[in-house]
Amino acid sequence: MKRRVEKVFSYLDVKPDAVLLANSTDPHLDQSFFHLFEVSSGLFEGSVAVAHPDGSLDVTTSPLEAESAHLAAKHDPHVKIHTVTREGPESLEVVLRKILPGTPSIGLNFPELTHAWYLRLEKLLPSAKFVDATVGVRRARQVKDASEIEKLRKAAEIGSRVGKEIPSLLKTGMTELELAAEMEYRMNKYGANGRSFSTIIGFGPHSAEPHYQPGDTKLTPGVSMVCDFGAYYHRYASDITRSFHFGPRDAELKEVHDTVEAAQQAALALLRPGVPGKVVHQAAENVINATKWKGLFTHGLGHALGLAVHDGGVGLAPNVDEVLEEGMVVTVEPGIYIAGKGGVRIEDDVVITKSGYEFLTTAPRGYLEVSA
Amino acid sequence: MKRRVEKVFSYLDVKPDAVLLANSTDPHLDQSFFHLFEVSSGLFEGSVAVAHPDGSLDVTTSPLEAESAHLAAKHDPHVKIHTVTREGPESLEVVLRKILPGTPSIGLNFPELTHAWYLRLEKLLPSAKFVDATVGVRRARQVKDASEIEKLRKAAEIGSRVGKEIPSLLKTGMTELELAAEMEYRMNKYGANGRSFSTIIGFGPHSAEPHYQPGDTKLTPGVSMVCDFGAYYHRYASDITRSFHFGPRDAELKEVHDTVEAAQQAALALLRPGVPGKVVHQAAENVINATKWKGLFTHGLGHALGLAVHDGGVGLAPNVDEVLEEGMVVTVEPGIYIAGKGGVRIEDDVVITKSGYEFLTTAPRGYLEVSA
Repeated sequence: MKRRVEKVFSYLDVKPDAVLLANSTDPHLDQSFFHLFEVSSGLFEGSVAVAHPDGSLDVTTSPLEAESAHLAAKHDPHVKIHTVTREGPESLEVVLRKILPGTPSIGLNFPELTHAWYLRLEKLLPSAKFVDATVGVRRARQVKDASEIEKLRKAAEIGSRVGKEIPSLLKTGMTELELAAEMEYRMNKYGANGRSFSTIIGFGPHSAEPHYQPGDTKLTPGVSMVCDFGAYYHRYASDITRSFHFGPRDAELKEVHDTVEAAQQAALALLRPGVPGKVVHQAAENVINATKWKGLFTHGLGHALGLAVHDGGVGLAPNVDEVLEEGMVVTVEPGIYIAGKGGVRIEDDVVITKSGYEFLTTAPRGYLEVSA
Repeated sequence: MKRRVEKVFSYLDVKPDAVLLANSTDPHLDQSFFHLFEVSSGLFEGSVAVAHPDGSLDVTTSPLEAESAHLAAKHDPHVKIHTVTREGPESLEVVLRKILPGTPSIGLNFPELTHAWYLRLEKLLPSAKFVDATVGVRRARQVKDASEIEKLRKAAEIGSRVGKEIPSLLKTGMTELELAAEMEYRMNKYGANGRSFSTIIGFGPHSAEPHYQPGDTKLTPGVSMVCDFGAYYHRYASDITRSFHFGPRDAELKEVHDTVEAAQQAALALLRPGVPGKVVHQAAENVINATKWKGLFTHGLGHALGLAVHDGGVGLAPNVDEVLEEGMVVTVEPGIYIAGKGGVRIEDDVVITKSGYEFLTTAPRGYLEVSA
């Protein structure tokens, strides 16, 4: 992964002597660790990755995951694995001081480093100077390379396949949790390494709560429903939302769906390198705010997607001045939420291309009435 | 949750004026936030909880999750919800300064706070003095109250039910991922809010890698297998491992299983309040090291379990001097790993009682040969 390491330094105006990423206990793992060290399995709790300006990478591991680490590094001459023990000449302290001798300046990824780890690093490396390398780490992760896009495409395909099947799974009386179980089962059967986040299934009024978690509410005829879900594929995430109407029709909710679809189209039409995130968000919001549902689109239009579902960096939201670049992957997910009645959200994953965008997710987006 | 808040302060020798917990972006959420603020759904990214010595709790939320927050606080007069906006008089800065006026000392949970959040707090509250409240936050979480033990018991029951069913799911030619999919599906059907961690299924030699992630390896007769999995139930986790032999018998692996079982029994026999974690670990290790598999038990015997699978605090491991207390929930999971051949691990979740322990997980632990 020499090129990814070099990319991190290329985005830093002042180059530190090294960039250090440190994992704490799950879930407090720095996802960028897995960007620079491409290991397919393992948590690597407590592990540290040290990236050098020449593209090389030192990785520490506990004996527990040493085998996976060596396997991952086998064909990459730029990666060196250090198995560390609790004490003695192979302790983390000794190994880190060997990797980082003298008084190095060390870039850190503050948003994914725990404060406890920061204090520990100050003790382990008392002569080092710690600086903020967030920008480099984040931007390097944002612009995906071909191998990452392939994994994201696979994750999106798994989600799309399940999204297409949802109408065939719906039955009067089934609970939100039951539908979530069926969907997650199918994602895993189709090759997912689990779901990428807690599946959101909201029936009826629950569909008006963007971050609702499924419960024992039963499906009854005449309600809208929001299904927001995604798969992991080799650590990369998809994130897709489809909304359905469980017949008979409700005239207002049909109109709401059409409006959300139009808002998504307006946003998609703007996607290309050089466009600021806020401009894309505004296009979708304008469509919704021109209707009687003005003000009911209550969240950002989209976020970066990659090793994390909320991957950091350029999103599509009101305050984002940063511009899109070729190779970025973002979600586009407008919604309208009518409290007490129901909501509609449509979410797709797209990769920014040289002149526009390409869908990674493919399931139908239009209004769909499923007979009860 | 007044009592939980008070518990945090009771464990702190020097009481700060407040204890503040801050969530970053998923997965960088402070699980202790959900210990003090018992809200059943939502991520609460960017939210802050401020606990006061009188047992009251201020919680900030984005408009996105305000509804869930208010619902959760409805019947608790000690919780106050503040919906914050990006700017203006309801911004986080203004709200925090209102909640924490003057020059307060503020305890933080360093292991679950990102360094970026720490720096942000220094800017938001320039007159405050930040101190380490990790011990209070962690210990309050370790000793579970009755409502937590009920949730953990339910999570463990779901895992145990699936554990019992594994033998009936095994078929020659099925892949590790397929078995994982079947198991996770059943957990969800039995009421889980998803899996609590990435399911580990290792067939044959893979069972010798403690943190292996399942792949496309097919089940063939004559191998051992390790299944390590768990459910979330209302945010609380279970973590159970069962090992099976897919016939015909391998004499050594049968002996390995019996040895691991004996090691677990030796450890369980010591569980009671007042016993240091390392003593329990040592008992299991001694059993294994008295056999020809000496040195092949390569990890700690167990960890605290709760809102996180690795819940922090007292574990059962070589260096742990801290002692068990009534109400703690820990895993007990000895294993033997023969590289290239196979491994066996048996893991149960137990709650420490006044005079000993009680199993939360219940599926059979003994050697089981499943006919191919």
